[in-house]
Amino acid sequence: MEKPVAKPKDDQSPHPRVCLVIHGGAGGITRDIMAKAGATSLVRKYEDKLREALEKGYSVLSHGGSSLDAVEAAINTMESSTLFDAGKGAVVNVDGEPEMDASIMEGTNKRAGAVTGVRTIKHPITLARKVMESTPHVMLFGEGADSFGKASGLETVTKEYFFEEPRYWELLERIYGGDPLKPDERAALKGTVGAVALDKSGCISAGTSTGGTLHKMKGRIGDSPIIGAGTYADSAFCGVSCTGCGEYFIRGAVAHTVVALCEYKGMSVAEAAKTALKTKVEALGGEGGIIALDREGNVAVEHNTPGMFRGVIAFDGVAHVTF
Amino acid sequence: MEKPVAKPKDDQSPHPRVCLVIHGGAGGITRDIMAKAGATSLVRKYEDKLREALEKGYSVLSHGGSSLDAVEAAINTMESSTLFDAGKGAVVNVDGEPEMDASIMEGTNKRAGAVTGVRTIKHPITLARKVMESTPHVMLFGEGADSFGKASGLETVTKEYFFEEPRYWELLERIYGGDPLKPDERAALKGTVGAVALDKSGCISAGTSTGGTLHKMKGRIGDSPIIGAGTYADSAFCGVSCTGCGEYFIRGAVAHTVVALCEYKGMSVAEAAKTALKTKVEALGGEGGIIALDREGNVAVEHNTPGMFRGVIAFDGVAHVTF
Repeated sequence: MEKPVAKPKDDQSPHPRVCLVIHGGAGGITRDIMAKAGATSLVRKYEDKLREALEKGYSVLSHGGSSLDAVEAAINTMESSTLFDAGKGAVVNVDGEPEMDASIMEGTNKRAGAVTGVRTIKHPITLARKVMESTPHVMLFGEGADSFGKASGLETVTKEYFFEEPRYWELLERIYGGDPLKPDERAALKGTVGAVALDKSGCISAGTSTGGTLHKMKGRIGDSPIIGAGTYADSAFCGVSCTGCGEYFIRGAVAHTVVALCEYKGMSVAEAAKTALKTKVEALGGEGGIIALDREGNVAVEHNTPGMFRGVIAFDGVAHVTF
Repeated sequence: MEKPVAKPKDDQSPHPRVCLVIHGGAGGITRDIMAKAGATSLVRKYEDKLREALEKGYSVLSHGGSSLDAVEAAINTMESSTLFDAGKGAVVNVDGEPEMDASIMEGTNKRAGAVTGVRTIKHPITLARKVMESTPHVMLFGEGADSFGKASGLETVTKEYFFEEPRYWELLERIYGGDPLKPDERAALKGTVGAVALDKSGCISAGTSTGGTLHKMKGRIGDSPIIGAGTYADSAFCGVSCTGCGEYFIRGAVAHTVVALCEYKGMSVAEAAKTALKTKVEALGGEGGIIALDREGNVAVEHNTPGMFRGVIAFDGVAHVTF
């Protein structure tokens, strides 16, 4: 799946360029590491869930739906799984509480919505979209975000929702030999989720959803809900979703840097993603990954971590996933 | 003060390039409007406070201090006044509560700190800096931000702090003829504050502090605390602080756009600020202003509102203020 390029095979195709790329976080885990540890059933679970997310999103696009709907559908699928650090799988802060972040942007009218510190809304990405579509604002935090979501009729959950058995960490610890994982090791395993889609109308949308870093300070906001850091979209250039050590992505304004490199330097989306990761993340000592998708359906995947859960599905409807 | 340029007059000068530019918000008020309404004492108050902020910040720079200290000192001065929508003068949200936002960034190591939804810390810009310097994070919201500030020993205030007599709105209503102002009119009067400084070492820092928009939804986050939207700094290029309809500045990633135009298009800071305001704010239908300062001490001030409270002080130590 290295730098896949989706090109229309047929000018008569009803949806010549629709494309969806997703990620489930960049970190220390690769498919090989997981497989060599004998966790073949977990490998399968990740592959299946990434494929399911791609297919849910692609179904929207192939029926002529919007890239916003596709991004939301793909991310909702990953938010409903415990395999990722988002929604149901969100890790907890230092007080043992989930505080979830998400953002979404559509690149044609450059509308955006974002939420941070969400505790009771099942699908933070859906709440971010609701902020975009039903308020004069772009971003809400904490109780204000939760109460707006509830008042808007979005599905709510209680704290128990986030802690089903078998617990993810316990499962992994069993897989890796029974030794308790250190917090740093745990943090390297589960990741933020994101998606970028191009629809029939040429609109590019991008979204990102996360539980943030394990044992983060109460109130910590990472890059995922920051328009310009974790998420950005401009249909004239590309859409971007990032994952990794969020603080570096904020300081580097990384998602917007990818778009700016396309807009102001004329770079391809692949060059732009590579340059942004190198000059704005690595240069500061940070790690993570970037997915990006341009208006021609060219996809970029860059990461400087050992692994990155990711997948792409283009005009031919075939889902490719790896990590 | 249109596009002032500060150049070293003398290579032997101990601080050849130190410079500080500040703003107190962009909106419907100009000096002429205020003076014609007979509010000459209010004109004087604004001029004096802007000058005081410049002189406090410049005192740091002229003694060889850091641009971070200068930005903090200038913003602290404006946060302590009721004339601006920041700190003591912060407007309230729909529930009648202050929720203050601030961010700060130093451009040499690209460190950054930000807070949103602060209710009890007297100087949000100081809290933002504390997040940058004393946590592994960049940004904190709400109670997490407030409690971190209190635990760090920062000065706290209660709600009463924000409501001294004579109330600012009542004062303005009296000045403008006694008719109660509509919320939109009120929002156009008081503004976000910001500062960008260049110190002896060549480090550029930028900061922004605000109470946000009047009667905003609970939990609304504007551009001021968003690194890349309201604030950005890169000592190789320039530092930027924005003010205006925050949602547009987030969607346009405006502060980072100014830096990106310098970095990737080779624009001067004046061209970059003008282009960013036109293509990333006006193009979306938004209004506001931008201050920027490059490593040579060139200052840019751009706004598409009738007025913008602003000032600059350069190597000669003479403060220039206007609005």
